[in-house]
Amino acid sequence: MKLLDQTLKEIVPADAGKRRDARKRLENLTMPYWALGRLMDLAEDLAGMTRSLRPPVKRKIIVTFAGDHGVAVEGVSAYPQEVTFQMVRNIAAGGAGVNALARQAGADVLIVDMGVAHEPVDLAASGKILSRRIAAGTNNMAVGQAMSREQATQAVEAGIDIAVGLDSRVDVFGTGEMGIGNTTPSSAIVSVFSSCPVADVTGQGTGIHTDQLMHKIQVIEKSISVNRPDKNDGIDVLAKVGGFEIGGIAGLILGAASLGKPVVIDGFISTAGALIAHALSPVCAQYMIAAHRSVEKGHRVALELLEKKPLIDLDLRLGEGTGAALALNFVEAAARILTEVATFEEASISKSL
Amino acid sequence: MKLLDQTLKEIVPADAGKRRDARKRLENLTMPYWALGRLMDLAEDLAGMTRSLRPPVKRKIIVTFAGDHGVAVEGVSAYPQEVTFQMVRNIAAGGAGVNALARQAGADVLIVDMGVAHEPVDLAASGKILSRRIAAGTNNMAVGQAMSREQATQAVEAGIDIAVGLDSRVDVFGTGEMGIGNTTPSSAIVSVFSSCPVADVTGQGTGIHTDQLMHKIQVIEKSISVNRPDKNDGIDVLAKVGGFEIGGIAGLILGAASLGKPVVIDGFISTAGALIAHALSPVCAQYMIAAHRSVEKGHRVALELLEKKPLIDLDLRLGEGTGAALALNFVEAAARILTEVATFEEASISKSL
Repeated sequence: MKLLDQTLKEIVPADAGKRRDARKRLENLTMPYWALGRLMDLAEDLAGMTRSLRPPVKRKIIVTFAGDHGVAVEGVSAYPQEVTFQMVRNIAAGGAGVNALARQAGADVLIVDMGVAHEPVDLAASGKILSRRIAAGTNNMAVGQAMSREQATQAVEAGIDIAVGLDSRVDVFGTGEMGIGNTTPSSAIVSVFSSCPVADVTGQGTGIHTDQLMHKIQVIEKSISVNRPDKNDGIDVLAKVGGFEIGGIAGLILGAASLGKPVVIDGFISTAGALIAHALSPVCAQYMIAAHRSVEKGHRVALELLEKKPLIDLDLRLGEGTGAALALNFVEAAARILTEVATFEEASISKSL
Repeated sequence: MKLLDQTLKEIVPADAGKRRDARKRLENLTMPYWALGRLMDLAEDLAGMTRSLRPPVKRKIIVTFAGDHGVAVEGVSAYPQEVTFQMVRNIAAGGAGVNALARQAGADVLIVDMGVAHEPVDLAASGKILSRRIAAGTNNMAVGQAMSREQATQAVEAGIDIAVGLDSRVDVFGTGEMGIGNTTPSSAIVSVFSSCPVADVTGQGTGIHTDQLMHKIQVIEKSISVNRPDKNDGIDVLAKVGGFEIGGIAGLILGAASLGKPVVIDGFISTAGALIAHALSPVCAQYMIAAHRSVEKGHRVALELLEKKPLIDLDLRLGEGTGAALALNFVEAAARILTEVATFEEASISKSL
């Protein structure tokens, strides 16, 4: 709790003066006014977050948090729970979607075991994954809290600790996750914070059919009514209807914000983590960059709560950090616009008539 | 005309068998079905274009064609004509938007003088730009043809020649342009091919005001009624209401298609060039990748004519090849999905229940 409280105190708003200075330069670049649109908005944001007109963005990492979910026993996913473990192996071996897209973006991938049901002992021993295990999966939130309040704090603090530990070698963070069943707690979280009916924020996850979707909605409704999470208390929401990897994501975001570094939010589950972080520290949203709009139904609502407009809309629904990896290209592009494009004065070019 | 005719004969459809093979592999990757959405569509397209399950995409180039427009004397742009020349210098010096974004994407930039009013002699002499000058700008299309039919063929053949000349060192092409006033011929081209009223496909270009926009629409309407371009004859449309750089873009696309290589189409003006290429060879559209949706009004109509859905929508309106450079990241990402992600079998992962 000490690390969490301390981190929350260290998060301060982005620098309005640097934003202004960046805007002034961007307005004078050799192009029609704001002709690179939302990339220029992003460049301005980066200047504010990093307090610099030369935002450092070269060293990138995707932190992919993995965890299992007790609620999987309710039959809410199209895949068996063992796939979490198998996919952790796949990511550690470099064969998953996030590995391919991180390589393209020039980003590292760090995979963190927050509580995979079948413990990947050998991978932790070999250093291929970071073990921050809290338990062998959460409890079934349809019959009680997913985790204790202490475990929720522990999950968030693990994420903070990882961000702070990476400070000296990372400029930009990206979030990712792996956890069979984790769209279920994510929809619960979005429903709690938005007060939207569960059915409006629950989608087909990895690909369940319509009758399974009806069942998934009922399971989430039951989880919320059994647990009655308090939307004004982020740790309470995480403990009652969250997941270990979702807590890790929330912590990574808080940690990045406390360091004054940008953090790219991947898809639906990562945005649920971002909502937990936002509940704990509204100002940390100033350090978030929304990567993409997932096809998962509740994502739009979650992004609206954060007042974020995603950069990419390519019908992605994979998670892992794949959307964040893709969006890192745009983060670097935005920084380059601010630092590498000449102004009218520098290039001796006539301004508009 | 010989090179153009020969190139048109060499353009054959993308390989349906390789598309099928790619789809089969993509459907078996370790992720829910088609969970990387439109990137997987693109991966399938790349396999068809390149006739390979390992589409080569490493070596990338943006070819930025520059030219001036006689119609600029009608006052259709917010910028004076000398800016074309000044921006060619800026791109050659590495200080323009396209340079910054091409560096991010790991792409080279080749700038081609197709007919800048003030000839950049020193840059051509120093090898910093490629000179394929046709004339010191087109004629004013509001009073007669923008160029002769021979010049139109020459412009297209210059683009083909550049693509073919780069074959041994380029895997993927991107288009770009610079030319004050060139949204005016582009809107004319889109109006001719779509049969949409000029007002429906004409926007504010680099930033003219509403009264200037009304005037621009009238100039384009006049250009079309004076010249009566034949939409079934791509060279006729280019000659009457086109531009030298637009012809170069059309040629680059035809050349890329004849080589079986992907070509990323930048924004509005590049898409006008793509419409010329498409009129000459409908099948060449199979090698086009639409980079982004410009804020320029006619772009949506132009993309619909080509049946292309753009990858990016970030309110860009710069041209130069900036959108193409950004989209090259996604081309590389798509190829990596096809080649670097493990299948369920390869990774020994359980399939869905």
